[in-house]
Amino acid sequence: MTTMKRFSVGVDLGGTNLRAAAVSEEGAILAAVHRATPQGAPGDDVTARIAGAVGELRGRLEGAAPAAVGIGAPGIIVMEKGTITQSPNLPGLDGYPLRDRLEGLLGLPVRLENDANAAALGEKWRGAGRDADHLVLLTLGTGIGGGIIYRGEIVHGFLGMAGELGHLKVVPGGYPCGCGSEGCLEQHASASAITAMGRMMGLGEQLSAKEIFELAEGGNRRAKAIFQNVGKALGAALANLVNIFNFPLYLLSGGVLPAWSLFAPAMLAEVERSSYVYRGTAGRTRIEPATLGADAGLFGAAWVGWQAR
Amino acid sequence: MTTMKRFSVGVDLGGTNLRAAAVSEEGAILAAVHRATPQGAPGDDVTARIAGAVGELRGRLEGAAPAAVGIGAPGIIVMEKGTITQSPNLPGLDGYPLRDRLEGLLGLPVRLENDANAAALGEKWRGAGRDADHLVLLTLGTGIGGGIIYRGEIVHGFLGMAGELGHLKVVPGGYPCGCGSEGCLEQHASASAITAMGRMMGLGEQLSAKEIFELAEGGNRRAKAIFQNVGKALGAALANLVNIFNFPLYLLSGGVLPAWSLFAPAMLAEVERSSYVYRGTAGRTRIEPATLGADAGLFGAAWVGWQAR
Repeated sequence: MTTMKRFSVGVDLGGTNLRAAAVSEEGAILAAVHRATPQGAPGDDVTARIAGAVGELRGRLEGAAPAAVGIGAPGIIVMEKGTITQSPNLPGLDGYPLRDRLEGLLGLPVRLENDANAAALGEKWRGAGRDADHLVLLTLGTGIGGGIIYRGEIVHGFLGMAGELGHLKVVPGGYPCGCGSEGCLEQHASASAITAMGRMMGLGEQLSAKEIFELAEGGNRRAKAIFQNVGKALGAALANLVNIFNFPLYLLSGGVLPAWSLFAPAMLAEVERSSYVYRGTAGRTRIEPATLGADAGLFGAAWVGWQAR
Repeated sequence: MTTMKRFSVGVDLGGTNLRAAAVSEEGAILAAVHRATPQGAPGDDVTARIAGAVGELRGRLEGAAPAAVGIGAPGIIVMEKGTITQSPNLPGLDGYPLRDRLEGLLGLPVRLENDANAAALGEKWRGAGRDADHLVLLTLGTGIGGGIIYRGEIVHGFLGMAGELGHLKVVPGGYPCGCGSEGCLEQHASASAITAMGRMMGLGEQLSAKEIFELAEGGNRRAKAIFQNVGKALGAALANLVNIFNFPLYLLSGGVLPAWSLFAPAMLAEVERSSYVYRGTAGRTRIEPATLGADAGLFGAAWVGWQAR
């Protein structure tokens, strides 16, 4: 008689894409599937698609069985209820009992986690955070998310809303933000902000952050100035975070990360100038690129699954 | 045969005053003594004066014996070494082995803690934080300190420098700060900042924060405007802290606290306006005055002592 090999299913549930991976307890991806997220569909459709992905992974890994499912998703996770709320990209799931429905359907423990928190856990488990007990991750995408890990675990706050780092105010009186405030980091350092700045700088009406990155790489001064501005905003936010936490590691990830060499010098100069604690740690506070790319969320979701057994 | 009653000695070691109290395990002050801190004296003198205070407490509590000593002091506490550094008010102690010398002299376990952290622990143990597992305390005195409690314990960071909340930047490009940055909370909401603003507003060259408070209470418009400015700066810092932590409780203490009614309306309006998480928690995030006054540090230091047994 042999023991059946077990895996955790990590699900990265985005507004457009649904990715799922079978991950071993040691953190190896055994198989992965990629689906579309049904747009604006009711919760039952999303549940069915996740169950289908789990079934496909099970089919492709004969002789192995799933132990649990972890799901990383944008929005606020209501832990005690196992629901997602305030997620503009997943409107059909607002308040829907995703955890309980999936548990009922699959007969497996299911856990939800915010996508930026899942990415932070992934980097801690398998990526750039492996040697750090405490770290902060900033995900620089269309918006900006944050994940705070203390003593190896996510800081959730008392209602699961901690780590809203995209809404740290870096420019009092700055651009208005969808959150109701103004001058938020997200308005100054996200991919959307880069597009908006490209328009204001007369580079083009709707250039993507990637196109503006390519202009800057080609030597365009205005495009380069945009990334310096991004770096300064990130540095202002990081200086406050370093003064608050005195953690050893701060990681950046997401679609803006390939522009690291364009924004990092201004960012690090701003942290050096503005954070007493950063200077006080004499080079031991590390601010670095994350290393797992889009897989961080998959690994982190699978890790959350492993914790649920 | 009776068991001898035990107490922890909490020491509040300031630049000017040295207070010590014998505190029972239940958190009752059994006796207290008040000394001057020897100004700029070498570490051995401070050690001797603390030992003398412990001796006096022991003498006054016949039939009871000290179990441990906890000391709250300004500056950075180097935990592994048991030393204090970067404390302008205690220059004679910089790098001095205070913990080990006192342990040798008294034959008791001794623990050091930053003064703002000790105040936060005191409020958690016996004050306004009793029902909260997580809280942030801001101490509004000559400078501004911070203490962060998560799951009942201080967040120290990897080098003991966490919680430098007086150096959160609230006004980019604002007044220069002794920390090397500018626009720090401490430059906008401490007692020193209130004195500086009083001078700039033409109220007088060297009015104390208390005198400016009295002018404001008497209806002086410029003095009232200063406290509104203080409130706005505190609100900006608190909005970021609420977005980061999603803790249930944020406390304010220190010499500026009596002006609560003058600065709190502007402070709470700024948090409401700027923090998405604050609004999202629908009244469940509490921002309140601390209740123990100067005793918070004594209670917290004694609590640290109890943990050291």
